[in-house]
Amino acid sequence: MFRVLSKTGSLFVLFACMSFSNQSLAAEALPSWNDSDSRDAIVSFVEKTVTLGSPDYVPVAERIAVFDNDGTLWAEQPMYFQAIFTFDRIKELAPQHPEWETQEPFASVLKDDVRGALAGGEAAFVQMAMATHAGLSTEEFAKSVTDWVNTAKHPTTGKLYTEMVYQPMLEVLRYLRANGYKTFIVSGGGIDFMRPWAERVYGVPPQQVVGSSIKVKYEILDGVPTLRKIPELNFIDDKEGKPAGIHQHIGRRPTMAFGNSDGDFQMLEWTTAGSGPRLGVYVHHTDAEREWAYDRDSHIGQLVRGLDEGPERGWVIINMKDDWHTVFAD
Amino acid sequence: MFRVLSKTGSLFVLFACMSFSNQSLAAEALPSWNDSDSRDAIVSFVEKTVTLGSPDYVPVAERIAVFDNDGTLWAEQPMYFQAIFTFDRIKELAPQHPEWETQEPFASVLKDDVRGALAGGEAAFVQMAMATHAGLSTEEFAKSVTDWVNTAKHPTTGKLYTEMVYQPMLEVLRYLRANGYKTFIVSGGGIDFMRPWAERVYGVPPQQVVGSSIKVKYEILDGVPTLRKIPELNFIDDKEGKPAGIHQHIGRRPTMAFGNSDGDFQMLEWTTAGSGPRLGVYVHHTDAEREWAYDRDSHIGQLVRGLDEGPERGWVIINMKDDWHTVFAD
Repeated sequence: MFRVLSKTGSLFVLFACMSFSNQSLAAEALPSWNDSDSRDAIVSFVEKTVTLGSPDYVPVAERIAVFDNDGTLWAEQPMYFQAIFTFDRIKELAPQHPEWETQEPFASVLKDDVRGALAGGEAAFVQMAMATHAGLSTEEFAKSVTDWVNTAKHPTTGKLYTEMVYQPMLEVLRYLRANGYKTFIVSGGGIDFMRPWAERVYGVPPQQVVGSSIKVKYEILDGVPTLRKIPELNFIDDKEGKPAGIHQHIGRRPTMAFGNSDGDFQMLEWTTAGSGPRLGVYVHHTDAEREWAYDRDSHIGQLVRGLDEGPERGWVIINMKDDWHTVFAD
Repeated sequence: MFRVLSKTGSLFVLFACMSFSNQSLAAEALPSWNDSDSRDAIVSFVEKTVTLGSPDYVPVAERIAVFDNDGTLWAEQPMYFQAIFTFDRIKELAPQHPEWETQEPFASVLKDDVRGALAGGEAAFVQMAMATHAGLSTEEFAKSVTDWVNTAKHPTTGKLYTEMVYQPMLEVLRYLRANGYKTFIVSGGGIDFMRPWAERVYGVPPQQVVGSSIKVKYEILDGVPTLRKIPELNFIDDKEGKPAGIHQHIGRRPTMAFGNSDGDFQMLEWTTAGSGPRLGVYVHHTDAEREWAYDRDSHIGQLVRGLDEGPERGWVIINMKDDWHTVFAD
């Protein structure tokens, strides 16, 4: 039957078959996604980059996908989960710091005044992170994160924070790895805050986590070689910092980048400016019922430039409400 | 026949078989090594950490081996190869910098006075690296390294620098990877100097290279997203810096560490202080004929503390002259 078709007809059938095949593939690989343009765009991109002989084929060594964490892999409302961890640490350490009762931003934290605590912006957050994270050895800090992650509950959902990861994104991570992609987290959050659970929850090993950090100092304490976190800023992995962090840790321009806020804009821009096939993807928080709906005016995860410029740059914008069948795994 | 042996006898036979098996394994996996204690110690360690049911079994995710580069994976005499690259760059850029004719350390470089050029130690080297590496985009810098590595010849051997990698160490890298180990370079040398050729020469991808660096800045130049190297120190990956670099990049304590100088001491110390099986290995340069012989008094790759304390710490000391059948691949 194909023989009698014109050349155009054959190509059309071929294209329809590929399309169909990609859609079945997509449904199988990404079961928590609805049949949607964003799902199909991700799957089509992956298929064309891993199919030998495709003009867009990408060698395995170059298959790098980077993911923001807060708001892209797990939720970030009513505020970054690491901020909640930090507030909890401040309350825990307060008895040893009577001066915090009058000193901002600590005083606001102790009065449960979140708005006041975050009024100082990034500088205040760095100050709180240093006060609560520094002094500990890297092992002690990892333990304090693990203890918190295993027990602390989200203020409105009552779930563990690690239960607030997006099932559709877990599927993307797995699907990419099954196709030879290396998956990296590139987050404004603390590198040492994510590593203790990222491997278990996301399947992303510590060496593939990039994040903000304070410095560590190597010293022999009571005969024991120790890496101690010290109150000195090392790196802020946000905005222009993300391409720099990618260069420093990965040393290769990613093939795909996933984000959800303007803090990820430069990461998507740097990624998609590379030659050959590249894909930028934004998660747009549109689901007030199952998650949160926010973008242009949000106090966290603000998304303005991404919405304005993303589509014309060919970036995929995931509409969480319409495109995701499931949000959180049960 | 085994049935009539006493339990002790059986265990002895079993042990002898294991020993024999490790020696054949070693000869097969590391053909450029002579039958030596250092070779057998490396192979025995690997075997016991990858054999299911062994009390020293290490899960694949935790199999991390770190390697110094200069003097451990490739030669470093008469001076670090990156210093020669930097001197070549200074000569190339000199016409644009008439002030260098009288300004140290540049003036010494232009007069081919190596001793004078390096008299300022690390600070002088950082100054030269900044002057010659900064200003370029990361892509331009990678190209300048690639061009140099593909053409520049070593002053005494006349070989390409990448031909001066140690064949026995290439075999160790491959043997470890075949056993599920991830191999990382952790070098005092420049991270961006090693990455352009480390994957081709060592099989170590860019994301597994840790090194010293200057900062990069993300900016849009004539509409093109660019990462430009700027003259600001980011990190010195040497001595106490090595455990810090390992934490920052890898986030997990290595199982094995290979070095050749006191600059690697803290890396071996940090590695072997971990619980469970750990191995520290030093390459001792003892072969004046085929390579170089140097240790305690060397101007480069000085090894004092490692020789004094290494053996009592259980570290393996490779005697290059006796233990290596071949030094450089032909």
